[in-house]
Amino acid sequence: MAKPTKLPADFKLLLEKGDKIYQTGISVDCVVFGFHENALKILLIKVNYINKWALPGGFIQKDENVDAAAYQILKERTGINNIFLQEFSVFGSPHRSDASVHQNRYQEYGVKIPKDNWLMQRFITVGYFALIDFTEVELMQESYLEGCNWIDINKVGPLMMDHENIVSKALETLRNQIAYTPIGKNLLPKKFTMPELQKLYETILNKKLDRRNFQRKMIGFGILNRLSETRKGGAHKAPFLYTFNDKKYQKALKEGLYGSW
Amino acid sequence: MAKPTKLPADFKLLLEKGDKIYQTGISVDCVVFGFHENALKILLIKVNYINKWALPGGFIQKDENVDAAAYQILKERTGINNIFLQEFSVFGSPHRSDASVHQNRYQEYGVKIPKDNWLMQRFITVGYFALIDFTEVELMQESYLEGCNWIDINKVGPLMMDHENIVSKALETLRNQIAYTPIGKNLLPKKFTMPELQKLYETILNKKLDRRNFQRKMIGFGILNRLSETRKGGAHKAPFLYTFNDKKYQKALKEGLYGSW
Repeated sequence: MAKPTKLPADFKLLLEKGDKIYQTGISVDCVVFGFHENALKILLIKVNYINKWALPGGFIQKDENVDAAAYQILKERTGINNIFLQEFSVFGSPHRSDASVHQNRYQEYGVKIPKDNWLMQRFITVGYFALIDFTEVELMQESYLEGCNWIDINKVGPLMMDHENIVSKALETLRNQIAYTPIGKNLLPKKFTMPELQKLYETILNKKLDRRNFQRKMIGFGILNRLSETRKGGAHKAPFLYTFNDKKYQKALKEGLYGSW
Repeated sequence: MAKPTKLPADFKLLLEKGDKIYQTGISVDCVVFGFHENALKILLIKVNYINKWALPGGFIQKDENVDAAAYQILKERTGINNIFLQEFSVFGSPHRSDASVHQNRYQEYGVKIPKDNWLMQRFITVGYFALIDFTEVELMQESYLEGCNWIDINKVGPLMMDHENIVSKALETLRNQIAYTPIGKNLLPKKFTMPELQKLYETILNKKLDRRNFQRKMIGFGILNRLSETRKGGAHKAPFLYTFNDKKYQKALKEGLYGSW
């Protein structure tokens, strides 16, 4: 454990004036899923003073839009900028906050947070999520406080507070959405094979899919262009390459894969 | 305008102690759509002191779950109990609150709200929505404050603050959802005709649908049982009656009309 030092200026400000700067009792948490070459990962922050991982989260400034706060928090805590974040749920249990998280942070500097301080209150949090290619973004260097990293979704240990619950709900939302909206653009190479597309779905759904059904369904959506090229080099018969049909993909994003009424 | 009287005790409490009872800076608003016999309506509260209609909304108690607060607020303000409310979006613009709404309420009693009072702050609101048969619920008698009523969705005038925006977003969510989840149970009579089911969709979507396409798509979902009975009495050929297949309807509610992956 690090030797206690003087309370950093930003910690002092947060403690003493945070309730003048931020909306009190409400926060934002970001669940960023990263996919690349059949691996689904999640972006987590290492919270050193409680020795747990947590979602990148933070507060909303008094004059800041909640959406804008989510982007700002993600940028400040991980370095990630300009990805589309979708609000997916509010976590509103009166028991979800854990004041000891803040206490532990300040205790390292020998500071005890007063019971009536704004940090000790209940926080309702707004959950945002995104799914990106994790090789396309650069994470910030580890700060003196904590680091962030991509953790395999199947190897996530116990998280801070109710963050496991937030991740579950985000994953559930993602899995529901891919039943009726297209996915894959920016996650797969521009030209991809049907098995590569299937693997993307299988990784997100965490289950095996039938090859024939998958192919029939996928082609039925009408969002793919089959190229005359094949992928050379495998032991098997060279599989056809596909690209997404941009116009139809965009239409399906808007109206759903099965069309609107 | 009513003659100013003494400030009611509950108003005084809200003003002076509200920030000890409720989470500050966050509220809940409920968009309840009502359908019956081809009419889509929305449940609104008449806010007398600003002469506008508004969504039933309110605050979250310090020890109350956000979901529970939505149910409680709807019950207290409209009398409606035990309907399923779904959280659909957070409205987080820093400019959405309008302190004059509170000011006007208290001004009627000659009370000026101090600028630093919690009611004058910015509120982020969590939107919940529901779609029910409006003849199945009983609205509260009008109170001395304000009344509530079902207003035809096409005849809604200017609403308080950003409530028109909240209604639009709820309607958009509802219309998106019926592209991939079933609808109709508890909104149609137990036995219904295909034209009656089609009219439900047309009313919600606010557009005409092709009769043959609708029927083919609907039957394709496999959630209907066609009865051997027909609806007697019309000038046309008696149309077949249908019921929902409960088991398949429930499955489709969970997995979507097109099945999961």
